Amino acid sequence: MSGSTGSFETWWDDLAPIGRTASGGYRRFAWTREDATLREWFVGTAQGLGLDVVTDRAGNLWAWWGHPDRDGPGVVVGSHLDSVPEGGAFDGPLGVVSSLAAVETLRGNGFTPSVPISVVCFGDEEGARFGIACAGSRLLTGALDADRARRLTDADGVSMAEAVRAAGRDPEQLGADPQALARVGQFVELHVEQGRALVDTGDAVGVGAAIWPHGRWRFDLAGRADHAGTTRLADRNDPMLALAALVTGARSAAERHDALATVGKVIVQPNGVNAIPSLVQAWLDARGPDEDAVRSLVADLAAEHGEAERESWTPRTPFDIDLTRRLSRTLGDVPVIETGAGHDAGVLAEAGVPTSMLFVRNPTGVSHSPHEHAELDDCLAGVRALTRVLEDLAS
Amino acid sequence: MSGSTGSFETWWDDLAPIGRTASGGYRRFAWTREDATLREWFVGTAQGLGLDVVTDRAGNLWAWWGHPDRDGPGVVVGSHLDSVPEGGAFDGPLGVVSSLAAVETLRGNGFTPSVPISVVCFGDEEGARFGIACAGSRLLTGALDADRARRLTDADGVSMAEAVRAAGRDPEQLGADPQALARVGQFVELHVEQGRALVDTGDAVGVGAAIWPHGRWRFDLAGRADHAGTTRLADRNDPMLALAALVTGARSAAERHDALATVGKVIVQPNGVNAIPSLVQAWLDARGPDEDAVRSLVADLAAEHGEAERESWTPRTPFDIDLTRRLSRTLGDVPVIETGAGHDAGVLAEAGVPTSMLFVRNPTGVSHSPHEHAELDDCLAGVRALTRVLEDLAS
Repeated sequence: MSGSTGSFETWWDDLAPIGRTASGGYRRFAWTREDATLREWFVGTAQGLGLDVVTDRAGNLWAWWGHPDRDGPGVVVGSHLDSVPEGGAFDGPLGVVSSLAAVETLRGNGFTPSVPISVVCFGDEEGARFGIACAGSRLLTGALDADRARRLTDADGVSMAEAVRAAGRDPEQLGADPQALARVGQFVELHVEQGRALVDTGDAVGVGAAIWPHGRWRFDLAGRADHAGTTRLADRNDPMLALAALVTGARSAAERHDALATVGKVIVQPNGVNAIPSLVQAWLDARGPDEDAVRSLVADLAAEHGEAERESWTPRTPFDIDLTRRLSRTLGDVPVIETGAGHDAGVLAEAGVPTSMLFVRNPTGVSHSPHEHAELDDCLAGVRALTRVLEDLAS
Repeated sequence: MSGSTGSFETWWDDLAPIGRTASGGYRRFAWTREDATLREWFVGTAQGLGLDVVTDRAGNLWAWWGHPDRDGPGVVVGSHLDSVPEGGAFDGPLGVVSSLAAVETLRGNGFTPSVPISVVCFGDEEGARFGIACAGSRLLTGALDADRARRLTDADGVSMAEAVRAAGRDPEQLGADPQALARVGQFVELHVEQGRALVDTGDAVGVGAAIWPHGRWRFDLAGRADHAGTTRLADRNDPMLALAALVTGARSAAERHDALATVGKVIVQPNGVNAIPSLVQAWLDARGPDEDAVRSLVADLAAEHGEAERESWTPRTPFDIDLTRRLSRTLGDVPVIETGAGHDAGVLAEAGVPTSMLFVRNPTGVSHSPHEHAELDDCLAGVRALTRVLEDLAS
């Protein structure tokens, strides 16, 4: 077993300028020019390592070492390269670059895998453009219907079908790909931690045990449009006051139920300085370790602030217990933690693939932000951990 | 004195379809296609009455009966034809159409004015496109600098200079027009009431005494972008909670100071469902009968929620006392009321023109909304009142 971390730093520098914004954050949305640049980089780098790159029907990229259709299924590592708006550099790319570096190290060491190995680069994990998170992996498994996906539109009204076509692919080919999925014997996704559990335990790397149940609800708070300068306070039906009550109510309900609740997206109509709004739409994101607690939180808010439209709901997703234990043991009994964030790993676990995750320490816990960070030493510890895991699983 | 209301209803029907949206509201922004259609209608209708239409350097239209440069200054009535987004049919057009109908009646009756009479159609009163209310009248008086105006941009990044050029006018000609202003001896603007004072008094028409002091302030509520699914409540700096406190604080400060306060516009960054915002910008509109009370309200909020950027401030604008009294007496001692809304009448009063207003009853008080309304009988009472006022002032 080698302590090498291969070309990690070189590749990290390759990616740094792609889709970077003035704030130092990233805007890497699915099926854009930035996305194409990132895909080209992935294909070129993987081919440079001697891997065979294939694209599945969902648009995900798989770089194979070995022949999965003959000798598979294989051990798959990887993550995604797209970002949320003003996202950080680590969420996604850390897993892809670490996976390529681990494979590079194993090949450099003359390791001979007993089963095929692949690095996957999932498309559209964040759902920043078309509103559906993990669109690439969900299309692959069939959890997202291809017709529905093709009709999704971005903020400019461009459909996913049009975006895929503009990126040079046939949108009619989009869809579940059981053959590609069957090649995955085990999946391990490495990811920067979103939270500070590893700061508390003092570990550079941890293993993931489960994804919390999480969902999104939309509250339509209706009021009556009116002139801000002439309408008496008593005559008003101002939905901005209802928003204020919902926001404070969500926070106290989260405290009460030992869960998380966030109002992060708000749309006001007509959104004029001198106009009492006719409508305020507010989106609630609710999660927590316990499913019943999350349901109770949302029920409390609906009772107080009106029924909400559930836009998504994902139950608690446990990772494969045997695989999680094996990873932790292989890495010297590192901590096993849960996460509140959704991941392609969760989608594959839902589809029955034995799946687990590795997390790399995040000193501030901040993610989905230009301030998202991981120390280089911890990233390299992640590469070494992933190398050991691959070596173990593919021996 | 005639009870005729001329072609009011015909002209009202002419305007009804221009810029109407699916909701039944109106979108009539300055220097757009809709604006051009409205201007063509005004010019054609005024010329049909035998009036001479001239455009001033600020882009406002003046339809003269008589020769102001020889026999002036004159008595001017009128208002504007543009709208807020999803505005109503009455705010603006009621004054323009009533003014034309009053002139038509006087001409039909063979009235001979002793001074010239004009119907003015001010441009860009609502400021819906470029963010500056009363842009036409403020350019005219010099209260809005022409260089600043030309550089203002709309939501698509189009400058006022570009928009004016696209509408077929030379933007370099935009600016103060002292000659056009000097032709205005007195100005009376008729407007639908925004509020319900006339409902309370039971009158179809009232006279305006003053415009309340009013201003706009922007609060930049900064937080720390973070992941909604993974950041512990205790670790958050969520500016949406600050917004909730500001909204409820603004309402209670308004009650305490017997004034109006509204948060009608909010911009959230990055505005993602699973993202704790990095920044929430909230605009406060504050007004009231008493200047000190409005200042105290804003000072209270700044002390509690951080300093705000003042984007505009207009002190209390009293209309001409003698003219206001004369109007009320002419109309049989109708109520004299104040208004919280800004108007071109306020800009002309500020510039030293003897000015007053007439208000037509609004049964719900609702304005800046598709539900803005005035009963036809009340509108026709407004036309008759304006006819009497013109007859009195121009005798």
